[in-house]
Amino acid sequence: MFSGAQVSVYPMSDDFVDIILGAIKALEPWRDRLRLETDHLSTLMVGPPEVLFPAMRDLFLAATRSGVHTTMHATVSRGCPGEPDDPICTPATAVAPGLPLAQRILACRDAVMTAPRTGQTIAAQLSLYPLGFGHHMDEIYGCIEFLKGSGTFDRSKNFCTALRGDAGPVFETLNQAFTGFGSGAGHIALDVTLSANSPSAA
Amino acid sequence: MFSGAQVSVYPMSDDFVDIILGAIKALEPWRDRLRLETDHLSTLMVGPPEVLFPAMRDLFLAATRSGVHTTMHATVSRGCPGEPDDPICTPATAVAPGLPLAQRILACRDAVMTAPRTGQTIAAQLSLYPLGFGHHMDEIYGCIEFLKGSGTFDRSKNFCTALRGDAGPVFETLNQAFTGFGSGAGHIALDVTLSANSPSAA
Repeated sequence: MFSGAQVSVYPMSDDFVDIILGAIKALEPWRDRLRLETDHLSTLMVGPPEVLFPAMRDLFLAATRSGVHTTMHATVSRGCPGEPDDPICTPATAVAPGLPLAQRILACRDAVMTAPRTGQTIAAQLSLYPLGFGHHMDEIYGCIEFLKGSGTFDRSKNFCTALRGDAGPVFETLNQAFTGFGSGAGHIALDVTLSANSPSAA
Repeated sequence: MFSGAQVSVYPMSDDFVDIILGAIKALEPWRDRLRLETDHLSTLMVGPPEVLFPAMRDLFLAATRSGVHTTMHATVSRGCPGEPDDPICTPATAVAPGLPLAQRILACRDAVMTAPRTGQTIAAQLSLYPLGFGHHMDEIYGCIEFLKGSGTFDRSKNFCTALRGDAGPVFETLNQAFTGFGSGAGHIALDVTLSANSPSAA
């Protein structure tokens, strides 16, 4: 198994360099459980989902504390047949353990309900891509059903679903969408955009 | 067929609002061939690929003329079974006409070679997701082979491929990747991040 993300943080400020460099320090507590590589487009974070999503949450929260309108984009992937297995990616808990869809939806919701809160409200929109099999829309529709009852659902959009809420439950919703749908060992990609401190947010 | 994109522009500047509002005016010449809806996270652009990609190019170029470091993200999709057919999306030319992969790679490269140049160098990274069938990696590997010979290839990364070059050929490369791979009427998603005027670009 290989899992990870290409992550970019965009502070809409003349001080974007300092805000980004400051925010990356929030990854320090996670460094022994992640492999990180940064270039001018994104930071590669390689590790299991239960580390990736809290680490991305801490990175984004650190950037939002500047108070400026900040967005983050992540391309998250697991099980890509073109990537080598990497021991750092082994999840502590089973991913998508083969339960029926209805049971997975309930388990994912339970996990979001108990997520620690952070005090920072954020918005997000995500697209989930279960790859390599013919009934991918069943898993996508199941994921959307989970999202609608997650407590972080904002609204449906073309090509994606918008979330809104405290950053803790929102990132746990992303984690559950990524690990709870598609096949357990299959190839899944998640495309997510996050936003905070927007002057035009409702 | 339904095709379109959720597009966001991120100028890393205190003047981000004015830069974004100014850049959106670059879509005026395309408005009769696109349906547009904007919210605080992204602008939905609905239309055929041969309109979407030049329109996104013009939007991004207008934002980069500010000189500030600007990025753009787009989630592009066609053939999603959950979206209704829309006459505005009918492409003028056939999409992925069922030719063997080797012939499609050559045809895609030819299209990039003749793309008009703009004078603006940009960087990009893209991930292509052919959905709903079992041999998706064949199409992804074919697309990567096209990208490597496209003239805009920068390097391979985990989960994505990085491009670099004039905005004209780079956006035509994205158009060809999106329309030349996967099945012609199938469900395809493209996740792309673009960047210009970066202080840390090589």
